[in-house]
Amino acid sequence: MRRAVVLLSGGLDSTVALHLAASEGYEIHALAFSYGQTHTRELLAAEWQAQRVGVASFRTVDLSFASWGGSALTDGSIPIEEGDTERSETPNTYVPARNMVFLSVAASIAEAIGADCIYIGVSQVDFSGYVDCREEFIRSMEATINLGTERKLLGGKPIAIKAPFLYARKAEEVVLGLELGVDFSHTWTCYQGGDSPCGQCDSCQLRAKAFEEAGVPDPLLQ
Amino acid sequence: MRRAVVLLSGGLDSTVALHLAASEGYEIHALAFSYGQTHTRELLAAEWQAQRVGVASFRTVDLSFASWGGSALTDGSIPIEEGDTERSETPNTYVPARNMVFLSVAASIAEAIGADCIYIGVSQVDFSGYVDCREEFIRSMEATINLGTERKLLGGKPIAIKAPFLYARKAEEVVLGLELGVDFSHTWTCYQGGDSPCGQCDSCQLRAKAFEEAGVPDPLLQ
Repeated sequence: MRRAVVLLSGGLDSTVALHLAASEGYEIHALAFSYGQTHTRELLAAEWQAQRVGVASFRTVDLSFASWGGSALTDGSIPIEEGDTERSETPNTYVPARNMVFLSVAASIAEAIGADCIYIGVSQVDFSGYVDCREEFIRSMEATINLGTERKLLGGKPIAIKAPFLYARKAEEVVLGLELGVDFSHTWTCYQGGDSPCGQCDSCQLRAKAFEEAGVPDPLLQ
Repeated sequence: MRRAVVLLSGGLDSTVALHLAASEGYEIHALAFSYGQTHTRELLAAEWQAQRVGVASFRTVDLSFASWGGSALTDGSIPIEEGDTERSETPNTYVPARNMVFLSVAASIAEAIGADCIYIGVSQVDFSGYVDCREEFIRSMEATINLGTERKLLGGKPIAIKAPFLYARKAEEVVLGLELGVDFSHTWTCYQGGDSPCGQCDSCQLRAKAFEEAGVPDPLLQ
């Protein structure tokens, strides 16, 4: 059975990517990160979704991004900005090189277990402007992975990065997720650390827009 | 003062790279990894050398490579192969994607603290054949770093990877290190977890050859 490593945060994008990978017949090795994010609640959603899909493994890797700061998402002393779709600057929730670190660790696991590919749920359509969610980065990372691991260089299959939502609107992900039977009440998007979504942060606003455009209610808000 | 992140394992290459970076006038942020390696003793050497140089910061980041295996270096149940310079295959001490993960974390720190560059002491001359010690990988990684972090994309200086020993023989590193005042008795190279170097593993053999070619005794063996 073909194997895939799936980066799983417990948010909307990665949860739909997980269910998509499962529907495509992969044996799934889910990978989450505990990196000092304010919203650790997303990890509970990640684990719930991993169990739902019946993954072969679910790993949470600890990483101390918080110790060198640079982001409101890992530094409790920096207030998380409210969402502003007119803003030209990246929001202060940007975590330097986050997806590069996540994909590097995923590549290490992919080579160790013989996985064909890595799924990542990034989109460069309805997004917060993070540079590491763009196709140019993803393709460069894929090339680098196959120079920094052995398999392709020894004549084997390259390790592919699958980013099925790069050009998808978030509303399309919601629709696909519903077709795949995703229970969105067990996903977590809000960047604030609260018990219910704040409704104000970038993530909450993008999620609300997605459900609105998809024409369905967000079960998390019921 | 210009800042540099220096990947520091406590081995010969990275220790000379550390002293070289210091001699080039950088404010140094040293970065070591505790990743389940059998030879954690190298981390003591790393910290000793960091203090010797007077770094601005010394971080040890924990990473659980050991939990997904794939290497004799992180899996105590796999015996470490003896050195064999005739061997065409990579030794089983290869850790999948190790330098990619290390450089990704270094890039995150470099962006967070505003460092100009990352030093890494890899060489593709006297080496064990690890794919992630080759220039092709290093240059691809550098390009990826500048697509997966913001600074260059926002018009700032790119983050450079400095690999000053890519084409150096290890003996040249020893000679340079002695010129820079490096105390090699506080470095650690052996992959076995013992109290003294085993003399048999790839790393021990490459180190012995380096000191022999440099025409000086290895103080660790005195």
